[in-house]
Amino acid sequence: MEPETLFHGEVSRRGLLKTAAGAAGIAALTMGGMGLFSRAEAKGGATEKWPWPYVKLDPEKTAELAYNEWYRVFCGAAVINSVFSQLREKVGEPYTSFPSDAFVFLEGGMVGWGTVCGSNAGANIVSNMIIGPRIAGPECENGAAIGADALLWYSETALPTFTPKEPRQKAKIIQTTSNSPLCHVSVGKWMKESGYALGSPERKDRCARVAASVAYKLVRDLNDWKDGTYTQKSAWKPASNIGITAQQNCSECHGSNVPTPPMAKK
Amino acid sequence: MEPETLFHGEVSRRGLLKTAAGAAGIAALTMGGMGLFSRAEAKGGATEKWPWPYVKLDPEKTAELAYNEWYRVFCGAAVINSVFSQLREKVGEPYTSFPSDAFVFLEGGMVGWGTVCGSNAGANIVSNMIIGPRIAGPECENGAAIGADALLWYSETALPTFTPKEPRQKAKIIQTTSNSPLCHVSVGKWMKESGYALGSPERKDRCARVAASVAYKLVRDLNDWKDGTYTQKSAWKPASNIGITAQQNCSECHGSNVPTPPMAKK
Repeated sequence: MEPETLFHGEVSRRGLLKTAAGAAGIAALTMGGMGLFSRAEAKGGATEKWPWPYVKLDPEKTAELAYNEWYRVFCGAAVINSVFSQLREKVGEPYTSFPSDAFVFLEGGMVGWGTVCGSNAGANIVSNMIIGPRIAGPECENGAAIGADALLWYSETALPTFTPKEPRQKAKIIQTTSNSPLCHVSVGKWMKESGYALGSPERKDRCARVAASVAYKLVRDLNDWKDGTYTQKSAWKPASNIGITAQQNCSECHGSNVPTPPMAKK
Repeated sequence: MEPETLFHGEVSRRGLLKTAAGAAGIAALTMGGMGLFSRAEAKGGATEKWPWPYVKLDPEKTAELAYNEWYRVFCGAAVINSVFSQLREKVGEPYTSFPSDAFVFLEGGMVGWGTVCGSNAGANIVSNMIIGPRIAGPECENGAAIGADALLWYSETALPTFTPKEPRQKAKIIQTTSNSPLCHVSVGKWMKESGYALGSPERKDRCARVAASVAYKLVRDLNDWKDGTYTQKSAWKPASNIGITAQQNCSECHGSNVPTPPMAKK
């Protein structure tokens, strides 16, 4: 985070949006599936005016969608599609033009490298696409705030919290707390405690339920934001608090207790 | 990665694209700034046909753009904009409708949490938006491959490799090798070796140059892909190699040599 470089004295886009020129922009955004953007607007660009129109969604329905989408597009794109597929129907543009399926690469903590869990990345993409980036004005800072809340909630919560109506796996899926937003740590702790391997159907169903759990929590926050009742929960400001970008669980890596990697089953 | 669930027997979208219906899709994609997508197509959706039209770019110019964009939108969005701003000019849609600026949240390893470096996330977004996700067909697998190459190259290379023509900071910016795609590790090692704090102008310029370096490498790979000469460099397949999603530097966390966090200057 670079709070000191916020805005650079530039004119807030939200401010512009409130002017007559902005009214045309809103009209373009709410034209539903037409998506008729002029070149000049698009360069601006037409989808880069925030917030995007949002209507409140049912968290339960969203979670079910995310669960099932996981089996098609995996964690990151499942969270995105669980929200955007509904908004494509209810709102239209700019959701129809957003290439959600291209985010399959978020799987496995980004092409399998175990960095940030794709569900967390997906939640941040959704909140920041809808509400906007902080450089677009103070009204848009809740995009990053809801994203940060997702990282914290994911780290602190025994996951998965959501059980689908028709689970594809009937085995008990245990809950574990990752203390981390990283795929490697989250999946690793669950594998160790459950005894299931990465390639097992149970591990996959666990991750599908985690994506669903994150989507559920995300939509609750977005609905609160729409109602004007959202307040940020996460107070973790590593740049100003500890002088480096970081997770909140320092001693879990910087300590004597880093787990020996088990000879994992494949 | 879930190689065994590839395609699920669905029809390849690339295959569809080669049909007459696909020709209409290509026409829609190449209409430049018009972006006239019908609702039915958009639901499909119109930007979810791959590959997106790509013209070869100058790596040097792209890196200069990324360097300067860093000071406006930070690492992730800087890499995206360095490529997409040129393609908005040269191609038009679907680049004009992609909300690049919303990806500011990738800064600091995602809202400051130090997970995957935003430059790496940005590179993966660019390659996967252009070439497509692996579920769209075998021709699209190079999107993830170029993304994985970015993670590996970033980890193994003494960064930054790129020096802008007009650097904002005149101090010598040293190069360090992260052995990791994570912001926390990459920035932390550079801070430790250079002695500069996170909030220093030098650290910021270092990160701007890292974004530029990643953009340079990314465009070289995309140009090779366009020429049909791209081959994947990274052979790291953690799911099948070691049975868990992971980086390639296991012993750096799972060992006795994890650095004690210094009392960092702010």
